Amino acid sequence: MAQYVYGKNVVLGLLEKKKNINQLFIQSNRNDKSVELLARKNGIKVDIVDRKVLDKLVDGNHQGYVASVDDYKLFSLDELLDSISSKKNPLLIALDGLEDPHNLGAILRSAACVNADGIIIEKNRSVGLNGTVAKVSAGAIDLVKVCQVTNLSQSLNELKKKGYWVIGSDCRDATDYRKVDYNMALVLVIGSEGKGMHRLVKQKCDILVKLPMESNFESLNASVACSVLLYQIYNCRNPI
Amino acid sequence: MAQYVYGKNVVLGLLEKKKNINQLFIQSNRNDKSVELLARKNGIKVDIVDRKVLDKLVDGNHQGYVASVDDYKLFSLDELLDSISSKKNPLLIALDGLEDPHNLGAILRSAACVNADGIIIEKNRSVGLNGTVAKVSAGAIDLVKVCQVTNLSQSLNELKKKGYWVIGSDCRDATDYRKVDYNMALVLVIGSEGKGMHRLVKQKCDILVKLPMESNFESLNASVACSVLLYQIYNCRNPI
Repeated sequence: MAQYVYGKNVVLGLLEKKKNINQLFIQSNRNDKSVELLARKNGIKVDIVDRKVLDKLVDGNHQGYVASVDDYKLFSLDELLDSISSKKNPLLIALDGLEDPHNLGAILRSAACVNADGIIIEKNRSVGLNGTVAKVSAGAIDLVKVCQVTNLSQSLNELKKKGYWVIGSDCRDATDYRKVDYNMALVLVIGSEGKGMHRLVKQKCDILVKLPMESNFESLNASVACSVLLYQIYNCRNPI
Repeated sequence: MAQYVYGKNVVLGLLEKKKNINQLFIQSNRNDKSVELLARKNGIKVDIVDRKVLDKLVDGNHQGYVASVDDYKLFSLDELLDSISSKKNPLLIALDGLEDPHNLGAILRSAACVNADGIIIEKNRSVGLNGTVAKVSAGAIDLVKVCQVTNLSQSLNELKKKGYWVIGSDCRDATDYRKVDYNMALVLVIGSEGKGMHRLVKQKCDILVKLPMESNFESLNASVACSVLLYQIYNCRNPI
């Protein structure tokens, strides 16, 4: 199935990276012809259309530019693990039922910044890779391997057998995230926006960590919590 | 001007906190009458309307519940500073042209979690407090003081005269964020999503800090960068 990605910079980025664009839709009243010219130079079919056509194709702020691309590549767990088999202390991120594409996009960016090795999402309980995720990820979607599994709990078992430690982020009964040594092969599990981790997934965790909360307000955005933890892991592995 | 806030939990939260709701709009086919009953009990005017009416009122996923509320309280800089005059080492966050309501909402949540003392936004160059910000903030909008100023650069000057240190987040020519002692009264400045800090604002910074980036991909989400820095400041002030 084709996917639509949108936004001028996103489309321009795809063109510059010579990514496979099946078709490009540009709003009819755009004065700047640079995107159109670059696309035509690359032999890509360009349709100049009314704004309403673009509004129907995508939900977000397309800025007059929508590209139809092939599906984003999703890796299997075996493919992902094979690709990092020689790496010391790989770092994977498992998202347990994350629903908000903005969160997945932001996590992809953070994962790219700390050079994490991949993100694991569950097939039916998590937001997948779509145009909004691509836009919010600001290009990180092309840098970070995303692996889709059928049953996250079972996949965590497999990873544990291969020597990975599973660290879950949780508000309660958890260790201060600053007290843990992250110098090991690990999977960081982030729960869903409203409900946190599912019970079966939580049971697989070797360590539960929490961020200190100064107030009674105990509710960080999921991508923020993930990213603060990713930087703690990075800092632990790369001390100054 | 009235503001619309939306989402079942958000509206329920307002009702439970006895916040001033001028009018409540509920989608006609909601089976769960709990919100409606609670609102009527509190003497709030409830309109049962077609989904299309709600779609016109707000942009986001309203889940069938939209409340019209008075404007969110915005503080002046003097009011904000008066309210924290007795505090040792206050922590303020200044947003220089942040545009995305999701980012402001997420920053409000992080600010509440680390008990920051206030957020400063510029009147004409930053997203203001609206229904999307309220929803994404998950209630933090009621906990963190937001101050609106006309000219951020001038306000930073005022703050410097009052003994605040201004720390800006920047990618280039900056100190590793882990090398700074944050035990002082400070304003953390976060630049806009695309362009970072404006030149005049950047010039006001006493220290520029950056997050280490492992890859060539140097682009964290603004709310993520802000939150990683807030937690570093928190950790520096509250070591384990």
